[in-house]
Amino acid sequence: MKPRLFTPGPTAVPEDTLLELARPVGYHRSPEAKAIFAEVSEDLKYVFQTSQPVYTLTSSGTGGMEAAVANTLAPGEKAVLLTAGRWGERWRGILKAHGANVAAVEVPYGKAVTPDQLADALGKNPDAKAVFATLSETSTGVGHDLAAFGKLVAGTDALLVVDGISGLGAMECRVDAWHIDVCVTGSQKALMLPPGLAFVSVSEKAWKKIDATPVRNFYFDLRRYRKSYAESDTPFTPANTLIKAQRASLKRIRAEGIENLWARHARIAAACRAGVKALGLEVFAERPNNALTVITVPAGVDGSGVLKKLEKTYGFKLADGQDTLKGKIWRLSHMGYTDAFEVLGAVSALELVLLESGYQLDPGAGVAAFQRAYAAAK
Amino acid sequence: MKPRLFTPGPTAVPEDTLLELARPVGYHRSPEAKAIFAEVSEDLKYVFQTSQPVYTLTSSGTGGMEAAVANTLAPGEKAVLLTAGRWGERWRGILKAHGANVAAVEVPYGKAVTPDQLADALGKNPDAKAVFATLSETSTGVGHDLAAFGKLVAGTDALLVVDGISGLGAMECRVDAWHIDVCVTGSQKALMLPPGLAFVSVSEKAWKKIDATPVRNFYFDLRRYRKSYAESDTPFTPANTLIKAQRASLKRIRAEGIENLWARHARIAAACRAGVKALGLEVFAERPNNALTVITVPAGVDGSGVLKKLEKTYGFKLADGQDTLKGKIWRLSHMGYTDAFEVLGAVSALELVLLESGYQLDPGAGVAAFQRAYAAAK
Repeated sequence: MKPRLFTPGPTAVPEDTLLELARPVGYHRSPEAKAIFAEVSEDLKYVFQTSQPVYTLTSSGTGGMEAAVANTLAPGEKAVLLTAGRWGERWRGILKAHGANVAAVEVPYGKAVTPDQLADALGKNPDAKAVFATLSETSTGVGHDLAAFGKLVAGTDALLVVDGISGLGAMECRVDAWHIDVCVTGSQKALMLPPGLAFVSVSEKAWKKIDATPVRNFYFDLRRYRKSYAESDTPFTPANTLIKAQRASLKRIRAEGIENLWARHARIAAACRAGVKALGLEVFAERPNNALTVITVPAGVDGSGVLKKLEKTYGFKLADGQDTLKGKIWRLSHMGYTDAFEVLGAVSALELVLLESGYQLDPGAGVAAFQRAYAAAK
Repeated sequence: MKPRLFTPGPTAVPEDTLLELARPVGYHRSPEAKAIFAEVSEDLKYVFQTSQPVYTLTSSGTGGMEAAVANTLAPGEKAVLLTAGRWGERWRGILKAHGANVAAVEVPYGKAVTPDQLADALGKNPDAKAVFATLSETSTGVGHDLAAFGKLVAGTDALLVVDGISGLGAMECRVDAWHIDVCVTGSQKALMLPPGLAFVSVSEKAWKKIDATPVRNFYFDLRRYRKSYAESDTPFTPANTLIKAQRASLKRIRAEGIENLWARHARIAAACRAGVKALGLEVFAERPNNALTVITVPAGVDGSGVLKKLEKTYGFKLADGQDTLKGKIWRLSHMGYTDAFEVLGAVSALELVLLESGYQLDPGAGVAAFQRAYAAAK
């Protein structure tokens, strides 16, 4: 059986990137290491679509999120939080730990925060120093209209801070054009690397606020990263084998071209949604994004049991819902190192398991709909 | 030419550990991942010589140090800092960032803080909540008498917090027997892994203080690690490929036996120091530790130039001094995945480069002295 990782992080890592990880370890302050770091930093700017530096932190994505909070807000300062799921709640947890005054715009799981809701929140909170948003809410599959959010926030003194961890590099995200002041991502999603690195872009507007905010931490102090970055270096011993391997995965993105990559993900996502619907299933997200498809478990079906069978019988590892959504949704990632044929296989396997579970469906309908939608989206 | 990494972090990684890194990436919340995590955690307890949990953080060693500070001290609380070099100063930087009231015991670079100095500081600062010390001061090669420090601190209400990043797993360090309340290490030193993981042990005495200290951060909040650890898990997506590979390197330590490993490092270090002295060179550290040998660059010799030649001509990569010691010392690591014959080779290469540089020495004296000391130390 061939195992296939379809969890929305970690995702499958290209074989040549994995082999980079097996190479002998070098000294992280050598000229060779600095040259690699500079190359990776340039390619990250391309993926982020920014002319600003993108800093590399050795941590989970959450570490990058904490850097974004701790550097931009002093305790007691107001933050507008847009939350549509577990990852919006992650922002809330970090904001609370840092003593921020949180004005939350909250929508039920499966829904997206609208630009109108943000406009309203900005109107009611003119003293907000920053808005915290999520590109891809991986817990529900929702994508947010960050282009619209950016237009609204750009007209204020507030910063737009985005968790792009599970969307950046899979769905359209233009950091500069969309006025995103701080954007965070992680290595283990669309950037096709194992977990261990977080990447953070910082706009000039954000630097002004950061430089006016008292330092309250050390490892996530972005000023230290800015200083080292000027010398193609990091302030602390980085996970240098991961950085070296990240170079290989980023070259892959460069070679494809970011707009082609977005289009590829959009096409696969559209086909996946069509396939799922043809099985009589529902897409959970009201405004689905292209990094993953989240499927509502139909009534009478053992959601977690289906996932176990999918993995055990056919090798497809999808993710369950988290917390209150456990057993109620299936999360199928199609970001990074995957293609239409593998996702078609996942739809096929899901159809087989559902059939075996006694669920009523039209055999072949899923893959046929996938195929038609994929061809039509060309 | 065969490249050999003799920097005091990163160090050489065993080939079988490197190959683990090239294996396909798995889901970090799977039962298999939890079993690996549990195994690694047990083996870490063995290396730390503790019955307390050892938490795994995805970060540089500095992240682990920040966790130690942020969790044990509230702003304004007093800390006794023992500093004998750059890594003692790292404690100071983190303590300052967190608003600690620092009472510093400072000795010149190359010297060690004595137990008497600590006793004096504890007497003068009965309100100190914690003492921050360094096992191996890698910037100078000094080792500290932590057994003696532990006896002194155990008689007070203060915690003993130790940066064991570059010594633990190379030199004797008994966390429980020596009353070390919080001990931090990193993956890229004696634990024979690339950089990216930090490990932190916490005593019951330390937990009492942590539980009474207000939370001020998120990613380094040790309470979150304690909660996840109970389920063989981490609170945030960990660098799971590194954890899996760490298992391989820890098995190597288990197989050798920690006391045999300490003895091996002690024997190599003694031979290395004898070899260096026979070349007419001086060991920089007053109280040298067994993780690395730091050599004073003799007058008239271009310290940085010798290191460049060593690397370019013979493949041995040693580390230069840092900051004010740049060009003034050579730092030769002999921790982790190395043996007497490779270190003998480093002494041989150093002798060759010194000869070529016109430095007066007795050819063969270095390796002969190494050999004799190694045999005698059996």
